[in-house]
Amino acid sequence: MDRNKIQELLERVRSGKTGIDEAMLALRTLPYEDIGFAVTDSHRSLRTGYPEAVYCKGKTIDQITGIVEKLSQNHRTIIATKATEEIYEAVKKMHPAAAYHMKARLILIGETQAVGSANTILVITAGTSDIPVAEEAAVTAEVMGNRVERLFDVGVAGIHRLFDRVETLFAANVIIVAAGMDGALPSIIGGLVDKPVIAVPTSVGYGASFEGLSALLAMLNTCSPGVVAVNIDNGFGAGFFAGMINQGGA
Amino acid sequence: MDRNKIQELLERVRSGKTGIDEAMLALRTLPYEDIGFAVTDSHRSLRTGYPEAVYCKGKTIDQITGIVEKLSQNHRTIIATKATEEIYEAVKKMHPAAAYHMKARLILIGETQAVGSANTILVITAGTSDIPVAEEAAVTAEVMGNRVERLFDVGVAGIHRLFDRVETLFAANVIIVAAGMDGALPSIIGGLVDKPVIAVPTSVGYGASFEGLSALLAMLNTCSPGVVAVNIDNGFGAGFFAGMINQGGA
Amino acid sequence: MDRNKIQELLERVRSGKTGIDEAMLALRTLPYEDIGFAVTDSHRSLRTGYPEAVYCKGKTIDQITGIVEKLSQNHRTIIATKATEEIYEAVKKMHPAAAYHMKARLILIGETQAVGSANTILVITAGTSDIPVAEEAAVTAEVMGNRVERLFDVGVAGIHRLFDRVETLFAANVIIVAAGMDGALPSIIGGLVDKPVIAVPTSVGYGASFEGLSALLAMLNTCSPGVVAVNIDNGFGAGFFAGMINQGGA
Amino acid sequence: MDRNKIQELLERVRSGKTGIDEAMLALRTLPYEDIGFAVTDSHRSLRTGYPEAVYCKGKTIDQITGIVEKLSQNHRTIIATKATEEIYEAVKKMHPAAAYHMKARLILIGETQAVGSANTILVITAGTSDIPVAEEAAVTAEVMGNRVERLFDVGVAGIHRLFDRVETLFAANVIIVAAGMDGALPSIIGGLVDKPVIAVPTSVGYGASFEGLSALLAMLNTCSPGVVAVNIDNGFGAGFFAGMINQGGA
Amino acid sequence: MDRNKIQELLERVRSGKTGIDEAMLALRTLPYEDIGFAVTDSHRSLRTGYPEAVYCKGKTIDQITGIVEKLSQNHRTIIATKATEEIYEAVKKMHPAAAYHMKARLILIGETQAVGSANTILVITAGTSDIPVAEEAAVTAEVMGNRVERLFDVGVAGIHRLFDRVETLFAANVIIVAAGMDGALPSIIGGLVDKPVIAVPTSVGYGASFEGLSALLAMLNTCSPGVVAVNIDNGFGAGFFAGMINQGGA
Amino acid sequence: MDRNKIQELLERVRSGKTGIDEAMLALRTLPYEDIGFAVTDSHRSLRTGYPEAVYCKGKTIDQITGIVEKLSQNHRTIIATKATEEIYEAVKKMHPAAAYHMKARLILIGETQAVGSANTILVITAGTSDIPVAEEAAVTAEVMGNRVERLFDVGVAGIHRLFDRVETLFAANVIIVAAGMDGALPSIIGGLVDKPVIAVPTSVGYGASFEGLSALLAMLNTCSPGVVAVNIDNGFGAGFFAGMINQGGA
Amino acid sequence: MDRNKIQELLERVRSGKTGIDEAMLALRTLPYEDIGFAVTDSHRSLRTGYPEAVYCKGKTIDQITGIVEKLSQNHRTIIATKATEEIYEAVKKMHPAAAYHMKARLILIGETQAVGSANTILVITAGTSDIPVAEEAAVTAEVMGNRVERLFDVGVAGIHRLFDRVETLFAANVIIVAAGMDGALPSIIGGLVDKPVIAVPTSVGYGASFEGLSALLAMLNTCSPGVVAVNIDNGFGAGFFAGMINQGGA
Amino acid sequence: MDRNKIQELLERVRSGKTGIDEAMLALRTLPYEDIGFAVTDSHRSLRTGYPEAVYCKGKTIDQITGIVEKLSQNHRTIIATKATEEIYEAVKKMHPAAAYHMKARLILIGETQAVGSANTILVITAGTSDIPVAEEAAVTAEVMGNRVERLFDVGVAGIHRLFDRVETLFAANVIIVAAGMDGALPSIIGGLVDKPVIAVPTSVGYGASFEGLSALLAMLNTCSPGVVAVNIDNGFGAGFFAGMINQGGA
Repeated sequence: MDRNKIQELLERVRSGKTGIDEAMLALRTLPYEDIGFAVTDSHRSLRTGYPEAVYCKGKTIDQITGIVEKLSQNHRTIIATKATEEIYEAVKKMHPAAAYHMKARLILIGETQAVGSANTILVITAGTSDIPVAEEAAVTAEVMGNRVERLFDVGVAGIHRLFDRVETLFAANVIIVAAGMDGALPSIIGGLVDKPVIAVPTSVGYGASFEGLSALLAMLNTCSPGVVAVNIDNGFGAGFFAGMINQGGA
Repeated sequence: MDRNKIQELLERVRSGKTGIDEAMLALRTLPYEDIGFAVTDSHRSLRTGYPEAVYCKGKTIDQITGIVEKLSQNHRTIIATKATEEIYEAVKKMHPAAAYHMKARLILIGETQAVGSANTILVITAGTSDIPVAEEAAVTAEVMGNRVERLFDVGVAGIHRLFDRVETLFAANVIIVAAGMDGALPSIIGGLVDKPVIAVPTSVGYGASFEGLSALLAMLNTCSPGVVAVNIDNGFGAGFFAGMINQGGA
Repeated sequence: MDRNKIQELLERVRSGKTGIDEAMLALRTLPYEDIGFAVTDSHRSLRTGYPEAVYCKGKTIDQITGIVEKLSQNHRTIIATKATEEIYEAVKKMHPAAAYHMKARLILIGETQAVGSANTILVITAGTSDIPVAEEAAVTAEVMGNRVERLFDVGVAGIHRLFDRVETLFAANVIIVAAGMDGALPSIIGGLVDKPVIAVPTSVGYGASFEGLSALLAMLNTCSPGVVAVNIDNGFGAGFFAGMINQGGA
Repeated sequence: MDRNKIQELLERVRSGKTGIDEAMLALRTLPYEDIGFAVTDSHRSLRTGYPEAVYCKGKTIDQITGIVEKLSQNHRTIIATKATEEIYEAVKKMHPAAAYHMKARLILIGETQAVGSANTILVITAGTSDIPVAEEAAVTAEVMGNRVERLFDVGVAGIHRLFDRVETLFAANVIIVAAGMDGALPSIIGGLVDKPVIAVPTSVGYGASFEGLSALLAMLNTCSPGVVAVNIDNGFGAGFFAGMINQGGA
Repeated sequence: MDRNKIQELLERVRSGKTGIDEAMLALRTLPYEDIGFAVTDSHRSLRTGYPEAVYCKGKTIDQITGIVEKLSQNHRTIIATKATEEIYEAVKKMHPAAAYHMKARLILIGETQAVGSANTILVITAGTSDIPVAEEAAVTAEVMGNRVERLFDVGVAGIHRLFDRVETLFAANVIIVAAGMDGALPSIIGGLVDKPVIAVPTSVGYGASFEGLSALLAMLNTCSPGVVAVNIDNGFGAGFFAGMINQGGA
Repeated sequence: MDRNKIQELLERVRSGKTGIDEAMLALRTLPYEDIGFAVTDSHRSLRTGYPEAVYCKGKTIDQITGIVEKLSQNHRTIIATKATEEIYEAVKKMHPAAAYHMKARLILIGETQAVGSANTILVITAGTSDIPVAEEAAVTAEVMGNRVERLFDVGVAGIHRLFDRVETLFAANVIIVAAGMDGALPSIIGGLVDKPVIAVPTSVGYGASFEGLSALLAMLNTCSPGVVAVNIDNGFGAGFFAGMINQGGA
Repeated sequence: MDRNKIQELLERVRSGKTGIDEAMLALRTLPYEDIGFAVTDSHRSLRTGYPEAVYCKGKTIDQITGIVEKLSQNHRTIIATKATEEIYEAVKKMHPAAAYHMKARLILIGETQAVGSANTILVITAGTSDIPVAEEAAVTAEVMGNRVERLFDVGVAGIHRLFDRVETLFAANVIIVAAGMDGALPSIIGGLVDKPVIAVPTSVGYGASFEGLSALLAMLNTCSPGVVAVNIDNGFGAGFFAGMINQGGA
Repeated sequence: MDRNKIQELLERVRSGKTGIDEAMLALRTLPYEDIGFAVTDSHRSLRTGYPEAVYCKGKTIDQITGIVEKLSQNHRTIIATKATEEIYEAVKKMHPAAAYHMKARLILIGETQAVGSANTILVITAGTSDIPVAEEAAVTAEVMGNRVERLFDVGVAGIHRLFDRVETLFAANVIIVAAGMDGALPSIIGGLVDKPVIAVPTSVGYGASFEGLSALLAMLNTCSPGVVAVNIDNGFGAGFFAGMINQGGA
């Protein structure tokens, strides 16, 4: 329902055409309509600058372009995740300004927020195979106007690279850690720093990794209290959450 | 929030003290409050006669009596499930009219609806150990004003008793089947009748029954399209749903 | 066995050719044959108008056409679910009047029942990807002679669309909700309305959705007592059950 | 090691060339060789007529023909299960007399035992999709020299066909039941007959059938004590076991 | 329904009081009653000598004595499994002749069949903790009139005891193997003998044995085709099945 | 890096070529060494005010007091979670100033930080049984110097209470939501607000809730991108993380 | 069978009382007996000094003393794990020299091997609650004659204590790491050292640790190739394996 | 440790009170700093000859060649596992000396260590399908300079081949056993020998093998204390660990 209906009602109240009781009843018998009114409106104002996401895997190109089309009517910024180049080609036909972040397998439609703070989000991966998920997180946070640094491939086998960049680690305001297999890296990082760590389990691994379950469980059971987790391979969710809390908003 | 606030606003609109735009804004800046208004109200009128439930297992007696106390302010009928006699004694002190259905391990606080229809709900169990869950379902439906018949212990080992009571089976309007272990009975019943069957897996069994998981999976995978499932041991949910659909309401 | 055999036996009893004891024995030594007699017959009369279903996924086209052929001898209406266009082409050769519901990925062979009641089944989805399963449910219920309304893509991200259509929600007699991922929507709907809600978990999601397990568990654990569940992606089962209970039958 | 070695030792003992203590030591320092001696020998005599099996899924054609080649040196009868026609073509080049049972997806290399008894193994399926697994069981038992009858597609939806063939059911000596989804049929059959029932869960189903887990659990949790289970889709194992116990051997 | 009803009908047919068509209708309109007739009767005659079982764990003493009471009306032999001495004391009051097999934690009410054949069932355990389950199997088979031998504690650590009794192993007609933890013993035995092996996983173990799941999976995945499995700790089911197939019946 | 580098540095220090401050800086900017250096140091300064936690469940009182004793040497504030009154009595003997938060089942040893900001953490529960976990989160955040508001029992059944307090919801800076069973509430809240939501699954529920697994999976699969999860029943972790990000630190 | 039987046979061969062929047959018709001969004997000589273990949890005191009694006939050293003091009291009555290692919850019956090498096994725990499992490993290795060092409570929260003892870490020849919850420590250690690491998951944790499953999966999925795992809480197995490989034997 | 300590040390160096060597020593014996120092150093010296591994499955050829390129800068020997011939062709372009072990599906880049000891690692498989995983283990150990023997296809069905090669079994210093399905072989081997056994579960199997889970659980639950496990299909890890402990190093 739109504002007109309520406006009309109020006008009728003012002109005396509708009595108070009758107006009260009208509001009551249209129970949820004003809810919609309020919700839509508040969301529109509050959500400024936060991107909407489309998960592409398992969807046809027609479905994806259809969803993008619908979302682009109400959202200034849309992110399509797990997107192939083929999908990008289809989206670009409708939105010529759409950009493709190949490493992140991510299409960006719409504006990127200006960077609003010197606070940095550090995105870390345990291995090379975790990079696409990490890039998805990084680009998402960048789109939301955050400064992002990357520190990749510093898992157990390459942990000396982590130590080499220790100032970077301590300088970060929020840290995202993507890891598959044993999922141990977020616990290690969480034990070193006193900043919020968002752990992203990835489906990297084989055998008893059970498509990321092993890493997910390890992250949920971390001994470091400053660590939270998102769904397996959910780089967008991690980047979005980090973007939310990085600028002093949260 | 209460009606007074909206009433005042409308009166100020009528008297011209508040302009239309301002009133619109007021409604917008008080988002959701009318939601509460509508929700509470509609629920109050619609939910007449449906009982509210308290799950007792794992709660202390103090917690249970506290919850019952709170619920009894807004609900005419409350059911406490998985209740021991000790819990009943505590509840009875507050609600002397409370009744204890021992087989169902269920306390009833408040009114039972009058029977509104000749339509019958038939409650079936595969084994003796499934009876408490089945009784919970049966009493719940009775409290909601339904006629209920019981047909217990007619699983594979006693299926001749099912065949002996076949008129009862065909005469029922809605059928609830509680079964543990292999959970096969709802499929068998669903293959014989053309009435809705609500399957209740029970935690009866051992070993690879995994506390009712085996029965639950069997029921979800039934080949009979007229069968739906509720949670393991959720007699209340099955009885409630059956009560909803039995009287032509649904 | 057919009726003739029993008829002959009775005639021989009447003519004295067969004694009572011998006839008793004959009935006993043909133990289950009369069962078949009764079952087939009662089913034939009772099941009028209910469709039979073939699940196509994982079957070859030859298998599917073979099953359809066999079913079409005894059933007036057959539904083939999860059907590709290629399957449809093969079925159409045998049954030129077969219709293909593309969104529902469903082939309809045979008659649709006339609409018998103004009662409406409302089919809701949380997201766009849940639509095929929801359409499967909707078409199934329509084939059974029910009025069906659709309300798609009203999950958490689009819940304002749900509130915009709140009269539709309250006007429905039975509600089907298809949702993947967190499976939260049936609980929300079940908390708002006092009508039976049939929850259909879908395999939509990734990572820890475990192909629909997450949504299924959420639905089974719903706090709303008026909610029941069917198997993951089982749109047909949900539509069939809803069709059963919608017209006051149940 | 071969018999010659022991024979030589014994001859040296007899001729006094080797003392008792030395011979004892020789036997001790050649531990296990006589084990091989005994094992191989007893197996050779006892296993007459029992086929050896190769599971083809996931193996290359080269691997399969290699294994068949090796096995055919020691076994009179080899069964290759889950075999495509392409595999059959490759095997036939080496073993021109090999036969392909298409429904069973099974290649037979070598002899079929003559039927040794009038005892019958009845192979039942719940649905059409269970037939390949059932045929695998049936052909395996036939190869071992058993009379086999088939009764397919008599699950819940077609249970009247089971009742129509009730003499067949009661006449069988051993019954194999293949079923997916809810896995209920073995429990039903086990409740009707007093003969051993071997339940074969199949991976037929979708969603919460979890590739046959649902059927497997149901079968393990059967209330009928005369029912045992084999692995999901293991038609060969069921047919082999039934063949073992059908002829009075066990 | 009882025989009288059918007898009366036949007499009325003979006397001409009831016409053929009317009698046909009567039979049709009493659909399942004759089913019950047939089922009960055939079962009564066929099931002679097979014991009925009550699973005691998780049941109150009152429930158990109630079930025993009911079963003893129709069954000559009843076995109560997982029974404590306390339960035995209660049962003995009703059935003074009831016997308690302490190792098997099993109460026997009623007759033991006379031994009908020299064929032997061999019951094996991997460890000491598996003995109660094995004894449950052994006593069940003995009650059914089978000769039973025991060979306990011959798992990996004590496998030399298995080799010491190798004649026993080869002389057995049917073998039951109870094992927990890695569940390896049935595979080993199944690879040595050519007789049917019934594997009983036990809940013996800790950690990743997951209450017997590890042993169960190992047994289902055995490479030996002559091995079948029953539910975890289901000694009764294994003994019953072995008893069925041991005497040439199956 | 090798020893030579350090040796050179020391030599330059000895020779006066490098000043103490410069050498200190060199050590800090060289990989590895400063790690240890930095870690200790940064931890000491940064961790001020962050509490250390002891999880009491499954530990003996002696173990708990021992751990508290050890921790209290290095930590100003210690929280003991899932603590009984008996544990509290034991701890109080050593630390007479220790306080017991009964609802939270939490012992606080040491100082509470002064409230540093008007930013509010809102702690929400779906049901009454989730309160202990929620209180654990709330008290933890309060100890860290945060303003905390509570909004309990606003799940599906009591969602009108959520709508009644909608200003509270929108005013919060960070939101913690504790829920068991279907775990739907964090998704609903995450869809309404644009603030970070920390979801805490609780082990409240029965049957297919699998001790909190159902709620955990629902929360990980949320459609709302601003939601992250911690371990089941981990109120401390949620409160700690919320405390970290609430004051603009993160 | 014992040596005498073979000796007799050989003597009869020597004396000509038994022919070669007959002796061959005798050996063949006693198929596995020589197996037993060889196995027992080789084991006796090879296994010198390796202890045998009894797992006490879930066993009655009578069962435990019975097993210890039986084992003590053939084994010089027996370890009873997960043993309470009550069990120790019972064992001590039979074996007054039995010692109780309280921290390890372990009873030692029999001799400890003399330390044979300067090679050290280092036993590490992540937390305090992992100590009993670690002590079980440590004592087992000590009993086998190994030098053992302990480094407890050096998980993520206390990792500085690990760094403080880094010479110990690098000096160890074999390392055992016991950890629950996220199970991250073995991966960290395995990334630092080049010595074999035996990871022991413990059931320490709650919620999604699923009784040690989380730690177990993390350890199996470690990125460090020098790490292997044993069962949850299996300190004995880890200590035994470490003892085997520490002294250059392996 | 704090800065003051280092500062003091430097000042003493400057003033000549402390010599360079003494200062070096002080730094090494102080916590933390030497960690970094030691780690780099020890790794460089110790890791000589240990290969680094790349897991190829699920990676693109570009990713693999990129990782190989990066690793080859710091590692003398690189192993690429689960590698197709196509991958080998790409790698060979960069590293013409790279070798392809087809059975092991493994590419070797760089040097093989000279054999340093007569100690032998025996690599065993249960079946033919386990050979690729076993070869991966064998080649890895060979690359590390170990003597390796192979004994394939000696599972339950071919166990006589194991007995035929019993000297090989007893002569081995370390044993690797690869097995899928029931995973029983490591338990059997572990019961026969007194040498360390490294069990590698393989994903060979179907149905309830759950991609190797069944074998993994069996191996973790082995009754033989000298058995440890690695991840499913992790031949490299098993070979690496065996190589570590075979030469008396561990």
